[in-house]
Amino acid sequence: MSVEITHFVTSGPDDVTDLGRALHDAQAGGFAPRAIIAKTEGTATINDFSRALARRAIEDCVADRVGREDSVQIILSTGCEGVITPGGYLLSESTSGGIPGLAIGVARSQPLPASSMITMAHSQAAEAVVAQAIAAAGIDTGDVALVLMKSPVLTRLAASDLPSRQRELANSTALSRGVAALGIAAALGDIDPRELTDAAIGRRGDLYCRRAMVFSGTETQCCEAIVLGNRPGFPIAVRTGIVRDLIDIDGMATIIAPDSQHPIEAARQAAESGRVRAAFLKGGIAPDGRVRGQRTTAFSSDLDPDKHMRAAASGVLAALLGDTRSFISGGAEHQAPPGSGVFTVVMAG
Amino acid sequence: MSVEITHFVTSGPDDVTDLGRALHDAQAGGFAPRAIIAKTEGTATINDFSRALARRAIEDCVADRVGREDSVQIILSTGCEGVITPGGYLLSESTSGGIPGLAIGVARSQPLPASSMITMAHSQAAEAVVAQAIAAAGIDTGDVALVLMKSPVLTRLAASDLPSRQRELANSTALSRGVAALGIAAALGDIDPRELTDAAIGRRGDLYCRRAMVFSGTETQCCEAIVLGNRPGFPIAVRTGIVRDLIDIDGMATIIAPDSQHPIEAARQAAESGRVRAAFLKGGIAPDGRVRGQRTTAFSSDLDPDKHMRAAASGVLAALLGDTRSFISGGAEHQAPPGSGVFTVVMAG
Amino acid sequence: MSVEITHFVTSGPDDVTDLGRALHDAQAGGFAPRAIIAKTEGTATINDFSRALARRAIEDCVADRVGREDSVQIILSTGCEGVITPGGYLLSESTSGGIPGLAIGVARSQPLPASSMITMAHSQAAEAVVAQAIAAAGIDTGDVALVLMKSPVLTRLAASDLPSRQRELANSTALSRGVAALGIAAALGDIDPRELTDAAIGRRGDLYCRRAMVFSGTETQCCEAIVLGNRPGFPIAVRTGIVRDLIDIDGMATIIAPDSQHPIEAARQAAESGRVRAAFLKGGIAPDGRVRGQRTTAFSSDLDPDKHMRAAASGVLAALLGDTRSFISGGAEHQAPPGSGVFTVVMAG
Amino acid sequence: MSVEITHFVTSGPDDVTDLGRALHDAQAGGFAPRAIIAKTEGTATINDFSRALARRAIEDCVADRVGREDSVQIILSTGCEGVITPGGYLLSESTSGGIPGLAIGVARSQPLPASSMITMAHSQAAEAVVAQAIAAAGIDTGDVALVLMKSPVLTRLAASDLPSRQRELANSTALSRGVAALGIAAALGDIDPRELTDAAIGRRGDLYCRRAMVFSGTETQCCEAIVLGNRPGFPIAVRTGIVRDLIDIDGMATIIAPDSQHPIEAARQAAESGRVRAAFLKGGIAPDGRVRGQRTTAFSSDLDPDKHMRAAASGVLAALLGDTRSFISGGAEHQAPPGSGVFTVVMAG
Repeated sequence: MSVEITHFVTSGPDDVTDLGRALHDAQAGGFAPRAIIAKTEGTATINDFSRALARRAIEDCVADRVGREDSVQIILSTGCEGVITPGGYLLSESTSGGIPGLAIGVARSQPLPASSMITMAHSQAAEAVVAQAIAAAGIDTGDVALVLMKSPVLTRLAASDLPSRQRELANSTALSRGVAALGIAAALGDIDPRELTDAAIGRRGDLYCRRAMVFSGTETQCCEAIVLGNRPGFPIAVRTGIVRDLIDIDGMATIIAPDSQHPIEAARQAAESGRVRAAFLKGGIAPDGRVRGQRTTAFSSDLDPDKHMRAAASGVLAALLGDTRSFISGGAEHQAPPGSGVFTVVMAG
Repeated sequence: MSVEITHFVTSGPDDVTDLGRALHDAQAGGFAPRAIIAKTEGTATINDFSRALARRAIEDCVADRVGREDSVQIILSTGCEGVITPGGYLLSESTSGGIPGLAIGVARSQPLPASSMITMAHSQAAEAVVAQAIAAAGIDTGDVALVLMKSPVLTRLAASDLPSRQRELANSTALSRGVAALGIAAALGDIDPRELTDAAIGRRGDLYCRRAMVFSGTETQCCEAIVLGNRPGFPIAVRTGIVRDLIDIDGMATIIAPDSQHPIEAARQAAESGRVRAAFLKGGIAPDGRVRGQRTTAFSSDLDPDKHMRAAASGVLAALLGDTRSFISGGAEHQAPPGSGVFTVVMAG
Repeated sequence: MSVEITHFVTSGPDDVTDLGRALHDAQAGGFAPRAIIAKTEGTATINDFSRALARRAIEDCVADRVGREDSVQIILSTGCEGVITPGGYLLSESTSGGIPGLAIGVARSQPLPASSMITMAHSQAAEAVVAQAIAAAGIDTGDVALVLMKSPVLTRLAASDLPSRQRELANSTALSRGVAALGIAAALGDIDPRELTDAAIGRRGDLYCRRAMVFSGTETQCCEAIVLGNRPGFPIAVRTGIVRDLIDIDGMATIIAPDSQHPIEAARQAAESGRVRAAFLKGGIAPDGRVRGQRTTAFSSDLDPDKHMRAAASGVLAALLGDTRSFISGGAEHQAPPGSGVFTVVMAG
Repeated sequence: MSVEITHFVTSGPDDVTDLGRALHDAQAGGFAPRAIIAKTEGTATINDFSRALARRAIEDCVADRVGREDSVQIILSTGCEGVITPGGYLLSESTSGGIPGLAIGVARSQPLPASSMITMAHSQAAEAVVAQAIAAAGIDTGDVALVLMKSPVLTRLAASDLPSRQRELANSTALSRGVAALGIAAALGDIDPRELTDAAIGRRGDLYCRRAMVFSGTETQCCEAIVLGNRPGFPIAVRTGIVRDLIDIDGMATIIAPDSQHPIEAARQAAESGRVRAAFLKGGIAPDGRVRGQRTTAFSSDLDPDKHMRAAASGVLAALLGDTRSFISGGAEHQAPPGSGVFTVVMAG
């Protein structure tokens, strides 16, 4: 089995013109669509309904073309600040063609009750769903390069009947991401499961996964996973690494071109030649708001910290690739050391 | 005469601790403070009073230390989105020391009446004040590397008695910047003054200066200029160029290291070695919102376009320099071709 | 023919539970759904997609239950600031039952080309569609109590190929409302059509309709009208009047209880007894931002003026009715004298 | 001793023209300025510096005119959404004149260390400072009508070294208000001090003061109190009561005109005749976001809940008084039952 990854753009959350074309081309080429991961361009506030609209449009489009919409995992993340081009990636699978050696698996948990959220039960649900997706991908844990996960948010409304401790954690997208990342880390063997306790969530910066990107959302009650990995015996198709901070362009370049003397130039050439087929960046800023020792306003302004992160990161990655069509997201809680980030590249040829 | 340029940080708009130290050090070294240019970290909305607060704090600080506050030109610009470290530069002059060959001149126009704003009279006021500042710097027009200018905004309130045409232009920070940039361009000989008409303001994208950065503000009725240039016979101390777009990291690197084979690496080394003493970036996005042919949401989101630009640009420049302490601003109307930007670096040694 | 008007609430833009129930009840009672007018709770920014989502959900719901979705006119308006309860009204028609004497008519124009927008052609399209809707209602112009209209916005993107004059008017929701209101005024005979010129749009505060509420939107290219009126020979079912300003609670009360000595108390009693079946308020603030001679920050803050207006008006009307379920909208350009507003009440019994 | 209360308006946070006039008039009339309480018109975000600017301008103005600025207590609160006219009240004291029977006392605590904030120590500091202010007013606890208090916020930065529990409470303006209100309630005997524990803060909705309005702020580390009360033997000059909810116009009217058959009309007449000298409203919305049983978006939108509350409340109170110049604030945690509010009126004659 091999996997094709195709970028599509959108002119708005409900625009599926380019996605429809990508689905058509995939099917015409004998590929079965497996997953869609996209950014929508809403306000990223609690009353932003861009993901709900995009999901409705994408599900209708997939149902039209593929038939059974459940067979395609859809993960949507909001926020296209800076120079992020709204759009996403379609991942399709076939017995031949595409990027040889690239493996994909998807899985979805049962809906989590509110009382489980931001607790170890939430983490364990994430862990279990990752194990399922790895199995679906048909690879070993060690060959997993990236786990993309959607994790539910404990909303204020849903928390209203819960104990006061949990109520105070409501509406936190950071905790939704962090708790799921701990579960992924356990599934991948990146942390010792005995370290995991409720008290660790959002507090133990030393516990983190190195191959995960988590997106929170109120649109689902489930943990939803897409696993990407490399099949043994093929050239490496997908590579993930920790980048030092949001502006670590050298770190990103080195993940793209690990053997180069001039990694930035080599990465640019790889991008220009079309060998960089997809790039995912999850950036964070340390809790003290500092980057390379200097203050930023990421945590002390009217803008949500994620907007600062996404917009700044979009500049860095677009500068490196000469292209604004990447998947960029903020908030790397328990996905990387505090202040660091995760960068993944899918390469062909 | 030579000029020293010193960066200072702020923990808030009214924090002058570091500036005070810089002023003290300058005076102790025999330097006379000439100009302060700084970014404040407010919301950049019409009800953002961060500049007014910073001005009050800086004027008090300057009055305490320098005596006559009028002798120091202060230009403040709001917006520290992304990874911009709030702070600014102090420019001081002496007969020896500092950066040899770096020249500075400042000037301020009379207050403009509201009826003149966003008309040729506004442009002509900018032109005249630049000529004054160049004379004060004691250099020729051809040796000017950068004109920094504060230009007044025609507020809705001030426009309420004006003709309806002018009322409809009120509150536009873009037009405030654009009309002043046209005047600077005329002063520097970058455009033919016969091209300048009211109808050209904000419309003729082919008319632009190449050595100016303009900041709009409601806090002044005057055009206020700081001119930086190079004295003949010295190594080039300040260099300005057009960069292709917000993500043109190669263009920025080449302005820092024009003769290098590997400009990004050379620029990084110059920054790390301390030879990059100041960096100013004025970034723009083309009116269609596209960067390298791809859509962005800069003009179609809840965020002011300038916030997208500043935040994305902050990532690019910080990635290049490995440092978040630069001066970054959005909105390059008539300062560069649509979609392009202006980059200036002050280098020592 | 008579008309029933039913309020429904929503828990989000895509929640049609209560609307579905209202549609079911209407049909079970022999009523044919004619129109839905609702408020959605998005951010009311250019990247707010709450109306698109609501429209999709409502159209699906109507198609499910009514069959031919085109037969029901849907007008959506965003903004539930303050104490506005998200929701709307379903208007259904029958030969008997409902509110006797209440008449309804709907109509929709052809899509307007961008080049027509914010010109007299836009106004004339509004005028024509009102005439059609009045005819559909089967009443005389003099019996029209309220015209609700959705008017298209000239977006920046659509305007990019238009002359610079029109480009500068792009993205203005105020002008979209104003130009349509002038057309409605012409249709209703409230203003002399010879007064209407392009130059009057947004400028001639003395030209206004007295029986219209207009909502702008990027989701349509058409002028879409819902006309409500009274059939002669029945008790007055719907009454509209100008209110002095946003805080004119006496004016609102007097429209509800025109003959009372103590109108506020009488209005409250009418509301508590269930006789107030629907209330629509369109509030404005004069261009100088003053209310009863005192400054407000409606035009000089980070919030869109409409948000100030809607939120403040929601307090006034909810205080009067003891109920937060009304239809409240800001921006009364050419719908009332500058600073004034329009208030409509539908009463039964 | 008697007290004069004078309203002043501002055209911006640093405008002290009208306040200067009020100070001049007070002193010319033999009054000693005691307190200034004002609203500023910033964005009410963490990077809103309007209060810092206003404080600087007011302190300079007071220092110029009164001499020793410490003698005048200054409380500033941000947020003029809706139809709130930016401005405030000057309270001055004299042996004769002004409003007979109106008493004032002010006091300020020592700066609180971060480790005390949002704990019982914070509450106790508030309690002690109220006792001091009551003593300064020379009245009994039972004669206190209103305690206005500024309470410090535990900022994220200050909390960074504190235990994780306290770090999670950082940046909460609601908890800053709530904890201080509990202390005021203890000082006034409104709650049993044995009920007070850290666990009660922000959680025990049944514990509340009935005569307090608390404003949070990062600009002070102290609890700062202004107490207003009535001297026995005089007509009641200041009256406070709980209002049912934000839209309880009848409740407000009844506090102004307690003996009237038609309280709204009587309140209006009192306002129009000039007998209402000041009005303070502290409004809240219940944690479930409902008003009179219906949903609002106060806790589920892009706007801070306080902005919804202030804007809606401004409409209600302005509708009642026919005047937009009142002091309106949101967030009544532990100051009234959840969802209720506090209303105070100062009346003369």
